Amino acid sequence: MLLPAPIQDLIDAFSRLPGIGPKTASRLAFYLLHAPDDVAILLAEALKGLKTGIGYCQHCYNITAAGRELCEVCADPTRHQDVVCVVEAPLDVIAIERTDAFDGVYHVLHGALSPIEGIGPEDIKLRELFQRLKDEKIREIILATNPSMEGDATAMYIQRQVINMPIRVTRLARGLPVGGDLEYADQNTLLRALLGRQELE
Amino acid sequence: MLLPAPIQDLIDAFSRLPGIGPKTASRLAFYLLHAPDDVAILLAEALKGLKTGIGYCQHCYNITAAGRELCEVCADPTRHQDVVCVVEAPLDVIAIERTDAFDGVYHVLHGALSPIEGIGPEDIKLRELFQRLKDEKIREIILATNPSMEGDATAMYIQRQVINMPIRVTRLARGLPVGGDLEYADQNTLLRALLGRQELE
Repeated sequence: MLLPAPIQDLIDAFSRLPGIGPKTASRLAFYLLHAPDDVAILLAEALKGLKTGIGYCQHCYNITAAGRELCEVCADPTRHQDVVCVVEAPLDVIAIERTDAFDGVYHVLHGALSPIEGIGPEDIKLRELFQRLKDEKIREIILATNPSMEGDATAMYIQRQVINMPIRVTRLARGLPVGGDLEYADQNTLLRALLGRQELE
Repeated sequence: MLLPAPIQDLIDAFSRLPGIGPKTASRLAFYLLHAPDDVAILLAEALKGLKTGIGYCQHCYNITAAGRELCEVCADPTRHQDVVCVVEAPLDVIAIERTDAFDGVYHVLHGALSPIEGIGPEDIKLRELFQRLKDEKIREIILATNPSMEGDATAMYIQRQVINMPIRVTRLARGLPVGGDLEYADQNTLLRALLGRQELE
């Protein structure tokens, strides 16, 4: 049996989102069929407003409301502008902000180096980062790229570029996740946890 | 840090969908920020077209393209109109159609009886079903409501109403799912499988 076009279109559109397979897509579409009208309408409006309503901070390339030059963090006079945390994506900024333990500023690369996917230094905001390091008085950069092949490669690339500058370069610690179980930790994580072991105080 | 309104709105809208928590919602929203424009636009259009483009079959209450009186199944002259499979939702019709083993027609209840949720016989398409049983020459109804408390209650309710009519009433078989593992079958399923055991031919 063929589904009526409007619902098949919606299933197809949902299926194009990451992590949503055909089963979830059709569950969502049929849910919306019976849901209060405003659930679908609000989602449609939000989707249309997304691209026009979002801009990028001209300083750190984090997302911000369209039309604003600086993001909330860069515009905040209480943040230390000389400590820069380099992340891959805006979601990483949110994750770090949630810790409430960082009072510096960010630089969002919008990606990581990946020869396999053909992503080179020119494709992410690396030039902009190095320009900042030249123009501003930066004391420390924290390399907070993902603990993945690509994230590590990106961190290494940045480190090599700044090695001769009077800037402290740090990387987020590796080790066992809090609440995790040693027994289930993978070999690499456990190796890092062992190598990075710290004195009890 | 507060997210810019357009992206927060989208996260909120996604979060209202079933099975999508705040984490998945923000992952989807940030994905769309970088995705090709048409992914978000197509989804928005499909959402808007849903309610206006979908109607219900005036015979069996399955979904159909708006403006059409009968659904594909009811309009198909090769289907046996005297065998009616009663299901809770349009998705169930699709599931049964996929078996390619049923050549009767359907009746979609759009719900199941549930005293807890306050869903009574008037809230689902039961009256319409009984009207069909009176008006048409039905030979068999297959109760294909879900194997849940509500589905069973609904099936029992229907059975009681038609017990004096010359109609064969059947229910989908219970037992072990194909490809399942006896060891992992829950007690009730195993009990049903045992009670419903069949002679080997």
